[in-house]
Amino acid sequence: MIEETLAPVIYLDHNATTPIAPEVADAMEPYMRTEYGNPSSDHVLGRRARLAVEEAREQVATLIGADPEEIVFTSGGTESNNMAIRGVAAMAPESRRRIVISAVEHPATTAPSALLEASGFLVTRLPIGRSGSLDLATAAAAIGDNVSLLSVMLAQNETGALMPVAELAAAARDRGAITHTDAAQAIGKIPVSIAELKVDLLSIAGHKFYGPKGVGALYIRRGTPLSPLVVGASQERGMRPGTENVAGIVGLGTAARLAVSRLMDDHLRIAKLRDDLWKALSTKISGVIRHTPKEACLPNTLLVSFPGVLGADVLARIPQLAASTGSACHAGEYAPNATLIALGAPLDVALGAVRLSLGRATTAGEMAKAAELLADAYQTTISTNSPGPNARKGNVSK
Amino acid sequence: MIEETLAPVIYLDHNATTPIAPEVADAMEPYMRTEYGNPSSDHVLGRRARLAVEEAREQVATLIGADPEEIVFTSGGTESNNMAIRGVAAMAPESRRRIVISAVEHPATTAPSALLEASGFLVTRLPIGRSGSLDLATAAAAIGDNVSLLSVMLAQNETGALMPVAELAAAARDRGAITHTDAAQAIGKIPVSIAELKVDLLSIAGHKFYGPKGVGALYIRRGTPLSPLVVGASQERGMRPGTENVAGIVGLGTAARLAVSRLMDDHLRIAKLRDDLWKALSTKISGVIRHTPKEACLPNTLLVSFPGVLGADVLARIPQLAASTGSACHAGEYAPNATLIALGAPLDVALGAVRLSLGRATTAGEMAKAAELLADAYQTTISTNSPGPNARKGNVSK
Repeated sequence: MIEETLAPVIYLDHNATTPIAPEVADAMEPYMRTEYGNPSSDHVLGRRARLAVEEAREQVATLIGADPEEIVFTSGGTESNNMAIRGVAAMAPESRRRIVISAVEHPATTAPSALLEASGFLVTRLPIGRSGSLDLATAAAAIGDNVSLLSVMLAQNETGALMPVAELAAAARDRGAITHTDAAQAIGKIPVSIAELKVDLLSIAGHKFYGPKGVGALYIRRGTPLSPLVVGASQERGMRPGTENVAGIVGLGTAARLAVSRLMDDHLRIAKLRDDLWKALSTKISGVIRHTPKEACLPNTLLVSFPGVLGADVLARIPQLAASTGSACHAGEYAPNATLIALGAPLDVALGAVRLSLGRATTAGEMAKAAELLADAYQTTISTNSPGPNARKGNVSK
Repeated sequence: MIEETLAPVIYLDHNATTPIAPEVADAMEPYMRTEYGNPSSDHVLGRRARLAVEEAREQVATLIGADPEEIVFTSGGTESNNMAIRGVAAMAPESRRRIVISAVEHPATTAPSALLEASGFLVTRLPIGRSGSLDLATAAAAIGDNVSLLSVMLAQNETGALMPVAELAAAARDRGAITHTDAAQAIGKIPVSIAELKVDLLSIAGHKFYGPKGVGALYIRRGTPLSPLVVGASQERGMRPGTENVAGIVGLGTAARLAVSRLMDDHLRIAKLRDDLWKALSTKISGVIRHTPKEACLPNTLLVSFPGVLGADVLARIPQLAASTGSACHAGEYAPNATLIALGAPLDVALGAVRLSLGRATTAGEMAKAAELLADAYQTTISTNSPGPNARKGNVSK
């Protein structure tokens, strides 16, 4: 059925998803073949599966400095965010029917928030400046005593900007609110510690840090009032019923273990490659704009805008380079980069966006090649297309 | 970390979970290694992942005779049931705040129903006779014009009894209700056809028919008013957002394809083995009770009760035989078989229950051996234990 061949690709779309680490796939393999027990079964196969799940729980807990009992496995980041946001709201007293999020959250946060809004909650969206950062004083002022939940992502998926979650959480905690952070883009790229962030809830997505798709976790601080999203039997202490995705959970645990051991090396090496890529791009392409902040950002992310073209037109010319123009989780439609629009960027800048996100296997050679390919594709695009503002708008609507 | 060795086991716990078919694991392998694209990504890796997901959707649709657009992938049977039951209830008009289920549904159905009950819905639980079947006239009479949803499982997980879902669905449809069936235990064991059942919603769990854990599907008849359980980006047409579990979905599709091609052979062969096992057990053990109906039942399931002992005590003596005493999805606690209690069985009969569920790899030799092991273990248990009713009650509460 698959007709397109898989030629070597320079993969710069790690914020969309990462390859599964070979160690992760290897760790999962037995649970795909011989270790097929149901962790709820009271026989040798069941017990072995249960042990594997509990070992993974310890590995995920270690990654963020939590207790294993505070980790609940889910089907991924979207479910974790739904569970956190709607689970807190379901338990919120009448006097706290308000939640605070940032203006640049992922749809996995904005959609549950909109659902609450439709049911009568107030939703405050903290504005983010063009730099990608958030004014703490304004934010703190917005968090009143009527807020049940603050939910702000730890790292922005498009720009890579880090949010001041620890400071916001402290302000929210002072007002008696529960605090949640979507750490999907941060885990595995920067150190993430519950002791530092002091949030009550934290979402993890396996496939963003070399683990499998379809598995994630929610950190739930002991004592946090939270209603489960899915109900059924007693798995995950009733917080997330359904037969456990044993192989996926083992994969998530192994990815967590690798993230701990590799974090520092990956961070330094990848940040340098990203900086090299920016240097090459800014030299070759006059007028290219960098949206990723110079400080307080993920090491692997470089969101740029090419002047006077559609980012998608540039990428379409280089099939051997895999990158993104919008948020990977809801692409397929031709639209400007929604995060840039939320940050107040002009439409043409948001349409010219290309997100280059590096990973563990990215090499210096790939960076040089990527810069060359992008610069060439840009030159061809700008010289063949000369779309006026109307032509571009026409493209937007399709 | 895993200390217990894996000696050869006679696996008779296929209703709890099945081994992943080698063909399924093989089909998943590329998506665990090289094909790591995010189906939402607009580059070669993304497109290939998207094609794989759509091929799997066709395979699952073919299994039940549905259109691919009517299949939504989920994280498993529990999520599918939650989505169906709560999704219909969320859209139900004020005049239809009542749902009808059977008295022997899985917790993945009873728990969402109880949640609705707590929010003001009426829940009617259709009684089931000792034979495991359901009186159609009584059931039809219970389905009034105020019912928004009928949800009855296709095959009972403990007894293996088949429920008259097509007839019930017809009665419910006549009253304007939406109809759902939890087909988790039926798929892969008996033919399951939307054209025959004519239900609006049908739940599928991958790991019950040689697919992976952590993936399932919900059939949603075109036009059925249903609110999504999880909200976020636009995956699965917005009905089930979150980055797709590509490897798991490919595994589910392959399991569906195998189920289609193997169904008849598996059915006949396994039913004969099950009947042989019953013959041997009933010859060797005087007073053993069979709960699985002789007709209208799954081919692979044999629920029996050993007289005067705890089923768990019998199984504890034969670690080389993997079977279950209760519903596998919520075991770990010592309690009587809940389905048998719901069917009106006496406590001692429900405590003596052992469920033997056969599968694709089960052999005639294993059946002979299992009967021998069970009979020996039973004799040892009955001769060493002589627990009075109080001693047994003591065991129940731990």
